[in-house]
Amino acid sequence: MTKTPKKSDFPVSKVRRYLEPGPIVLVSSAWDGRSNIMTMGWHTCMEFTPALVGCVISAGNHSFDMVRQSGECVINLPTTTLTDAVVGIGNTSGAEIDKFAHFGLTKEPAEKVAAPLIRECHASFECRVADDRLVDAYNFFVFEVVKAHAAVSPKHPETLHYTGDGVFMVSGRVISRRSRFLPEML
Amino acid sequence: MTKTPKKSDFPVSKVRRYLEPGPIVLVSSAWDGRSNIMTMGWHTCMEFTPALVGCVISAGNHSFDMVRQSGECVINLPTTTLTDAVVGIGNTSGAEIDKFAHFGLTKEPAEKVAAPLIRECHASFECRVADDRLVDAYNFFVFEVVKAHAAVSPKHPETLHYTGDGVFMVSGRVISRRSRFLPEML
Repeated sequence: MTKTPKKSDFPVSKVRRYLEPGPIVLVSSAWDGRSNIMTMGWHTCMEFTPALVGCVISAGNHSFDMVRQSGECVINLPTTTLTDAVVGIGNTSGAEIDKFAHFGLTKEPAEKVAAPLIRECHASFECRVADDRLVDAYNFFVFEVVKAHAAVSPKHPETLHYTGDGVFMVSGRVISRRSRFLPEML
Repeated sequence: MTKTPKKSDFPVSKVRRYLEPGPIVLVSSAWDGRSNIMTMGWHTCMEFTPALVGCVISAGNHSFDMVRQSGECVINLPTTTLTDAVVGIGNTSGAEIDKFAHFGLTKEPAEKVAAPLIRECHASFECRVADDRLVDAYNFFVFEVVKAHAAVSPKHPETLHYTGDGVFMVSGRVISRRSRFLPEML
């Protein structure tokens, strides 16, 4: 069984802690009585406050319409304990299977959006669409993170970073250079 | 001395190999007879062909005007051998120092843009601004990678992934699940 980290409230202004390193994430969505999950590697932080995150959700994905229609999603952070689920979710379609059931993942109610959190993930960020100007051109959504949840430990979970070709790099080993940063740059 | 990887041409449609994992990158720019380098962690792939990359370059950075005026930059991929240069570049301003000279980095002429490549980096991606619609709102540039260069080895260089607070995670260890991907998903 997958371990289930216990999550606490996390400041939305600090989600760069988890997203700036560029991990593969799982995007959960809900619309019209159905829910879905997709694997996503194309995202970037855009602002601390409001906490903005930009993401490409390809129009070919079953999740695209659910996010477009609902204007909401949850960005969940899986760790290496979920590698096989991440791969499976990326290689199946929500038009054909219920991904929560199929991959043994658990829906938890979010606080501010209708899309569910994924309990087995290390962190979950509830998002609302803040700007859709680049959706038609590039399938690029700007989301505001309106509520964040993160496990307190481990402090540096092993995350997956996708390189294409079925290969992930793993992050987790840490280098600190804190003493060499200007205070205003921390 | 920093080792200098020998770079070859790399297909622009495959830059996700290096950028999707979410590494810290060094952005070099040139304008009006001057050049500069900034450290950047807020970027995302947006399309394979054309090869689009979205980036936040804060208007507070000396590089912002150089990129805005020239419409060009080079995104360079440093590895852990350059950790101290990455930190130094992120904590100084090009308004005050010549970062190439100060951090012992070497300019190489690019092929399609005026901004210089950084010789000591593992890969360098020559970029032109493709869409500036979100620059005023979020300092978000959409670049097209018009020419790419990458070292052939090491195959999985150790890259730096910034978490804030002066702390980087290191990627390099690899997990392959290639056999579990659908052919069209590779």
